[in-house]
Amino acid sequence: MQFSADDERYMREALQLASLGQGAAEPNPMVGCVLVQQGQVIGRGYHAKYGGPHAERAALADCKGKDVRGATAYVTLEPCCHHGKTPPCTDALIAAQVARVVIAQQDPFGLVDGGGIDLLKKAGIAVEVGLLEAEAKRLNAPYHKLLALQRPWVIAKWAMTLDGKLATYAGHSRWISNELARERVHRLRGRMDAIVVGSHTALLDDPLLTVRPPGARTPLRIVVDGEASLSLTSKLVQTAHETPVLVAVKMDADAQRCEALRDAGCEVFPCAGSDHAARLDSLLLELGKRRLTNILVEGGAGLLGEFLKLGQIDEVFAFVAPKLIGGSGAPSPIGGAGWADMSEALQLTDVTIETLGDNVLMHGFAGKAT
Amino acid sequence: MQFSADDERYMREALQLASLGQGAAEPNPMVGCVLVQQGQVIGRGYHAKYGGPHAERAALADCKGKDVRGATAYVTLEPCCHHGKTPPCTDALIAAQVARVVIAQQDPFGLVDGGGIDLLKKAGIAVEVGLLEAEAKRLNAPYHKLLALQRPWVIAKWAMTLDGKLATYAGHSRWISNELARERVHRLRGRMDAIVVGSHTALLDDPLLTVRPPGARTPLRIVVDGEASLSLTSKLVQTAHETPVLVAVKMDADAQRCEALRDAGCEVFPCAGSDHAARLDSLLLELGKRRLTNILVEGGAGLLGEFLKLGQIDEVFAFVAPKLIGGSGAPSPIGGAGWADMSEALQLTDVTIETLGDNVLMHGFAGKAT
Repeated sequence: MQFSADDERYMREALQLASLGQGAAEPNPMVGCVLVQQGQVIGRGYHAKYGGPHAERAALADCKGKDVRGATAYVTLEPCCHHGKTPPCTDALIAAQVARVVIAQQDPFGLVDGGGIDLLKKAGIAVEVGLLEAEAKRLNAPYHKLLALQRPWVIAKWAMTLDGKLATYAGHSRWISNELARERVHRLRGRMDAIVVGSHTALLDDPLLTVRPPGARTPLRIVVDGEASLSLTSKLVQTAHETPVLVAVKMDADAQRCEALRDAGCEVFPCAGSDHAARLDSLLLELGKRRLTNILVEGGAGLLGEFLKLGQIDEVFAFVAPKLIGGSGAPSPIGGAGWADMSEALQLTDVTIETLGDNVLMHGFAGKAT
Repeated sequence: MQFSADDERYMREALQLASLGQGAAEPNPMVGCVLVQQGQVIGRGYHAKYGGPHAERAALADCKGKDVRGATAYVTLEPCCHHGKTPPCTDALIAAQVARVVIAQQDPFGLVDGGGIDLLKKAGIAVEVGLLEAEAKRLNAPYHKLLALQRPWVIAKWAMTLDGKLATYAGHSRWISNELARERVHRLRGRMDAIVVGSHTALLDDPLLTVRPPGARTPLRIVVDGEASLSLTSKLVQTAHETPVLVAVKMDADAQRCEALRDAGCEVFPCAGSDHAARLDSLLLELGKRRLTNILVEGGAGLLGEFLKLGQIDEVFAFVAPKLIGGSGAPSPIGGAGWADMSEALQLTDVTIETLGDNVLMHGFAGKAT
């Protein structure tokens, strides 16, 4: 399929629009739409919020009486053809009598999966698929993972010193990163479905794991805590009535401690599985069942090591601060067993680098968009 | 002292010129000079090489017959007034009949130290000191350290994964950084007086520690190796006849092993002192005696931990690669005991960030320029 430079420009704008829904659209995919009539953009829309209008209808509404007949619609994902929370977008495009629909990516969701394209074609609309497909797939990678693997997209986040430490040997970590970096973390948290930490981090840092200021959603706070050891006086437990806390325990965790956590307002979720890895995967499957799309794992090193070993780190936000603390006993970001040879290392892709004052944020993905 | 925007612009140019001598001027300071006649630059010069002409004479020569009388000379360091390898620069400026000399920084070197300024003033030349002084001091910080503390300027360099590892738990580190980063390291090495590694790194990596392609100088290769354990079949020892190797040992290191290393072409230097820190300091003093100005410490973690503890890391070049290898047993860049509290961390200053493909180089100094 050949696309013109104009086609690409409009699709880029549609992708840009789509990304505005990040944090509010999930578990739906992010979608953007641009309507073009004779070289003029006459309508723009995106899926701004789960349950709200889809991108195509938003773009059509944005036309405000302009003549849409014969226009081209640039849509970042195949228009839906089923009745969900809103009526099918294919109906709207057909009714509007657009002449051509350019789609970045077919929607693999079972109730669509080519059906929207077929309906449009049957209505006599020219349909072209695949423009900026890689970018579209990248944008909705969490949606695709949840569909394909029934597990949420896992984002690993840490802040380390320039000598590679998450904390001093004594476990002290306030503060490694600067204020700009910490603000950036809160922005990231604000679009997450859950924030996950290990029991050691919960004990050591006594974190609140809330979003300040609040973001598009309020993430569930999860502690991976096999023995249900989380202190009843911790900030997490103390605030469990205001912001949900899930404690992921072993099947045979002490019943009294589990009961006490429940009484304090926490949800206690027993993870099936005979080892750490299996239990972590049980947790991921449970979160997938609940349609959590994005989760942020904030450490510590042991938990991140488990996620790495499971092959379940999908994306990384690593903050590096120009401080040196030394210490062969100080934890570095990812623990566990690790790999023996550099050739086994997980090479991040599509790496971007952001400077935040004198801190650096290195961001990347565990694999190519597929 | 009030300086004009023009003054500052010319001095910046002089500083830029000075920096061109980096790697070739040492153990002399880097100096740049710009001669300005009625708003026009009529001559530029810098101290290009140890033993060669000083910046002021180079700038005067660059005037090529233009009238220098009444001009202003911008010099980044106080002109010398003593006969060293070249005659005094004050003589040249006085003979050229410049009207004004603007100096970034007085030269603390004992044979100058204000004497140059006095001579110029006595000759009726207007002298102004202190324009961009901090920048000038930063540029020549290694020269100043050697003068003040009789020890070389210590640059710590490492390449780590984004999860803070110098190597895998099995000691494998080829390659963490990308080719651009490794080229950058060779450019850095090419201006060093010595490259220093610990015995464990020498054993594990069997490095060559040469500069490829060759730079302005050929650094002495130093192994901090208390027990004189360096293998006679190592690349370092095998090439000791072409590129010097110094093995820094304890006073009571095995005499036979020391002799064998000497026979193989290495210099063996016994370090006085009852502990690691004292012995390392003996080595630094010895290198200072030899007027080594800049040394590059390339690891491993144990040796860098010793330098940190000694307060002898002056500058850092840290390369970060977007790879994850995990492993609680994998070394992070700076080992040793380390500090317990984040407030004790060494905060780098004047931090700069350079992207090298998907690698990042974070560079900074251990303290403010003084």
